[in-house]
Amino acid sequence: MLPSSIKAILFDAYGTLFDVRTLTQKLSLHFGDQATAINEIWRRKQLEYTWLRALMQTYQPFSTVTAEALDFACESLGIELEPKVRTDLVQGYYELTAYDSVLSQLPGLAERFALSILSNADEAMLNAAVNNSQIETYFQEIFSVDAVKRYKPDPAVYQMAATGLGLAPNEIVFVSSNTWDVAGAKSFGFHVCWLDHFGGTLDHLGVRPDHIIKNLSELK
Amino acid sequence: MLPSSIKAILFDAYGTLFDVRTLTQKLSLHFGDQATAINEIWRRKQLEYTWLRALMQTYQPFSTVTAEALDFACESLGIELEPKVRTDLVQGYYELTAYDSVLSQLPGLAERFALSILSNADEAMLNAAVNNSQIETYFQEIFSVDAVKRYKPDPAVYQMAATGLGLAPNEIVFVSSNTWDVAGAKSFGFHVCWLDHFGGTLDHLGVRPDHIIKNLSELK
Repeated sequence: MLPSSIKAILFDAYGTLFDVRTLTQKLSLHFGDQATAINEIWRRKQLEYTWLRALMQTYQPFSTVTAEALDFACESLGIELEPKVRTDLVQGYYELTAYDSVLSQLPGLAERFALSILSNADEAMLNAAVNNSQIETYFQEIFSVDAVKRYKPDPAVYQMAATGLGLAPNEIVFVSSNTWDVAGAKSFGFHVCWLDHFGGTLDHLGVRPDHIIKNLSELK
Repeated sequence: MLPSSIKAILFDAYGTLFDVRTLTQKLSLHFGDQATAINEIWRRKQLEYTWLRALMQTYQPFSTVTAEALDFACESLGIELEPKVRTDLVQGYYELTAYDSVLSQLPGLAERFALSILSNADEAMLNAAVNNSQIETYFQEIFSVDAVKRYKPDPAVYQMAATGLGLAPNEIVFVSSNTWDVAGAKSFGFHVCWLDHFGGTLDHLGVRPDHIIKNLSELK
């Protein structure tokens, strides 16, 4: 399926490798029935704030943006957020683990390709999830946007990974479950695969991925 | 209330001067009960796509982004969007009019300050709403991001207006109802007023407006 020019696979992290649904369970423990409403706003604002701070040129690390998005979510719903609950919820990102469908495929993929990760998360947050999932052995490089202090889909972020790997963009297949990230990576010049875990809708941003898969086992 | 250094008022357009709620009525005519769901996704994606295209450096005019966001909204809900309905809904942006509370205050403000507009919309779309509202006489300049092919909150957009007015950022008060625009303008260096028509929540992006008002009559 992949063209023979491909020399490396570069993965997005959250939602692609790591299952973020466990964060909802943590929210439920603290907020009960209000967890779904908080979660929807929290996720949306977390993304928005990365894009807005990237455009405003006022970068703050993902852990800060994540906490500020949670602050907004609670304030907009009139819910008080205790400092220790805030800390516990952001801590959830350090405790994420990989999907079973990812865990089962990584060993085989690592035998055939150089695997790396490119994520919006700060290095500490990212390494924690990699270590929790016991998958560090499969990856050659783990790139955090913190090195360039911008956020995806700024082309400078994707370029950082290509430069770090010493490869041309079209020698790399970028795999993401996030449709806006798929568009950004394709627009940059990567060969792009949308990993559609849950049946989503592609964004209408003028570009389309080269491949659409439901499971990493299709990446051949 | 405003410092004596202020020489001009610069307004955001949609949601600030112009009432976008009429777009919902148009949606209801075409889609009945589904209008609310479409509208929520349409608005959200329209903003997201401006930010993402600005970051991706793949600018397309606001009319295109608006239509593509509507395409996504309908596709994600499994609703067929006929070409003539699509055209009619985007056309709604050309037919917007100003809030009554804006219309009543502009003449008095125009006597005391130089008034201008800075909007994400393309020039044709923006001029149509200004003309519909019969408010063109109050404005000295109407700035569209189309001149720099970026979107707010990229500082280059705010700088374009400051340069066009021949003023330093702190000689201009920027008025917006959009909290992300408030943050972008404040981060850039404008004196900023949040026009909170409907009781919203400020974004948590590390900056706050200088003033918060419910009605332009408070701008003194």
